[in-house]
Amino acid sequence: MDGEFPKLPTNQKLSCQRLTPPTTVNLLDSIDVFLFDCDGVIWKGDSLIDGAADTLDTLRAMGKKLVFVTNNSTKSRRRYAEKFHSLGISVTEDEIFSSSFAAAMYLKVNHFPKEKKVYVIGEEGILEELELAGFTGLGGPEDGKKTVHMKPNNLFEHDKNVGAVVVGLDQYINFYKLQYGTLCIRENPGCLFISTNRDAVGHLTNLQEYPGAGCMVAAICGSTQKEPIVVGKPSTFLMDFLLQKFNVPTSRMCMVGDRLDTDILFGQNAGCRTLLVLSGVTNLSDLQDSSNHIHPEYYTSTLSDVVSLFNN
Amino acid sequence: MDGEFPKLPTNQKLSCQRLTPPTTVNLLDSIDVFLFDCDGVIWKGDSLIDGAADTLDTLRAMGKKLVFVTNNSTKSRRRYAEKFHSLGISVTEDEIFSSSFAAAMYLKVNHFPKEKKVYVIGEEGILEELELAGFTGLGGPEDGKKTVHMKPNNLFEHDKNVGAVVVGLDQYINFYKLQYGTLCIRENPGCLFISTNRDAVGHLTNLQEYPGAGCMVAAICGSTQKEPIVVGKPSTFLMDFLLQKFNVPTSRMCMVGDRLDTDILFGQNAGCRTLLVLSGVTNLSDLQDSSNHIHPEYYTSTLSDVVSLFNN
Repeated sequence: MDGEFPKLPTNQKLSCQRLTPPTTVNLLDSIDVFLFDCDGVIWKGDSLIDGAADTLDTLRAMGKKLVFVTNNSTKSRRRYAEKFHSLGISVTEDEIFSSSFAAAMYLKVNHFPKEKKVYVIGEEGILEELELAGFTGLGGPEDGKKTVHMKPNNLFEHDKNVGAVVVGLDQYINFYKLQYGTLCIRENPGCLFISTNRDAVGHLTNLQEYPGAGCMVAAICGSTQKEPIVVGKPSTFLMDFLLQKFNVPTSRMCMVGDRLDTDILFGQNAGCRTLLVLSGVTNLSDLQDSSNHIHPEYYTSTLSDVVSLFNN
Repeated sequence: MDGEFPKLPTNQKLSCQRLTPPTTVNLLDSIDVFLFDCDGVIWKGDSLIDGAADTLDTLRAMGKKLVFVTNNSTKSRRRYAEKFHSLGISVTEDEIFSSSFAAAMYLKVNHFPKEKKVYVIGEEGILEELELAGFTGLGGPEDGKKTVHMKPNNLFEHDKNVGAVVVGLDQYINFYKLQYGTLCIRENPGCLFISTNRDAVGHLTNLQEYPGAGCMVAAICGSTQKEPIVVGKPSTFLMDFLLQKFNVPTSRMCMVGDRLDTDILFGQNAGCRTLLVLSGVTNLSDLQDSSNHIHPEYYTSTLSDVVSLFNN
């Protein structure tokens, strides 16, 4: 009976299948580079997800290349590598593609003038990556304690030489930073508005989600009535760097993530294979909800399934 | 020649005309109630706009009813009346329709249960109006100094009995409040998300604009992926209260404001006549820009023109 009907194209046939032993073998055979999201895939907050570290070791032992593509902008690549090491996972800095790095690279590839400054609503990671790329950042943590003095004839001054505002997750968001970024975007001619990402929420601790960069970015959209350039997932801006690093077609890359609207969409936008893990923000009912239109090729409970299903 | 063509309907013929002596006489003849925005019309920050106080006196002497419809939620009606008095303008509390009052009235007319609580991202005005209406508010200024302790196994607790989050302008916005409001909206079943207004910026001082409620509201939209109920302008929610107060058709009311997307749109949505003053956030080129689709019936430089043109 199988032969009576034309076969569905592979991508449709496989659309949103639960990972099984045979599909796992098939997937591992056809992938050279795995791209991992971190939060909700490898860890939650500062707690490793069971089996994640061993799975990464096993994939490396199979000869797979691994990179970590994260929308978390609070850390630089260097600090991100330290976090991996503290959790017992060995990575090198150049395997890490964070949205903080993406923001600095966006300015670099677009020849942002070195004499201009970059105002940061975000944390240390963005400032460190800006500095490594040769740019002058201001704002960020040092503006976390500043307040606005709302007195008659008191002018809130801002640097007219700021040519870009980068907005990411900022646990120290305040009215001072919102006003500073808003003035730069509204009043400095040609000032860029760059967002590291627009994640609504993220697992900042193992127990709970907190507002993500999408919250701070939306605030600046609200005050400026402008939309940002997004450099993190689901934007494929970072894919050029991955292609340069590996020289492998994206069809031989697999994006593994816990978010539909960032990880899976990023993978699909870039032409990668996609695997959703249910260990983070997305659960099975979110995935199967009729309002969801982002369907990964495969889904599974947690990262370590990749190895256990392969071994079955 | 005039008789050869049918006359345009009045509202089209008069669309976006500069106020002149004859049109001013005509307008004053046909209006019983003037609705004024305050910031950018009567004052900027704490500085009266030249001639505004005398104009209000003259209109009252002509027998016009005056009310003040403001999106500023930082003050209660009582505190707003005090601000008027401090600037030498006599008003009564019941002539003031602030978005802080609107938020409390929205809960009242929708029979919000008195045993539920209301979390406030905003300032004292909202809390005072909630209390006057018999509701229990929390958050607001008292959460302005609170910080988030992002430690493993540390749960950020929120009151499961919060049934509404009201978001307005908050100069003391912080990550604690953003997380608290986000948790209530995302986790408390049926929790309402009410915004006093969505003004992008406002003249919080005489010299400068600062982010408005639209900034804080957008932040919560960003983290919750939900859209708010808006009770301030351009929503016409408050119009029922004005109609009850005056028993005058809206065609005999004129909304005077400095913002197209709140004041003028509110007036038009409610069926009022509209007058834009150029003393606030909108200038002539904004008004005439091809991207602007909100056209007041009249515009003029500043409120006092209404009297000087009438006397000419």
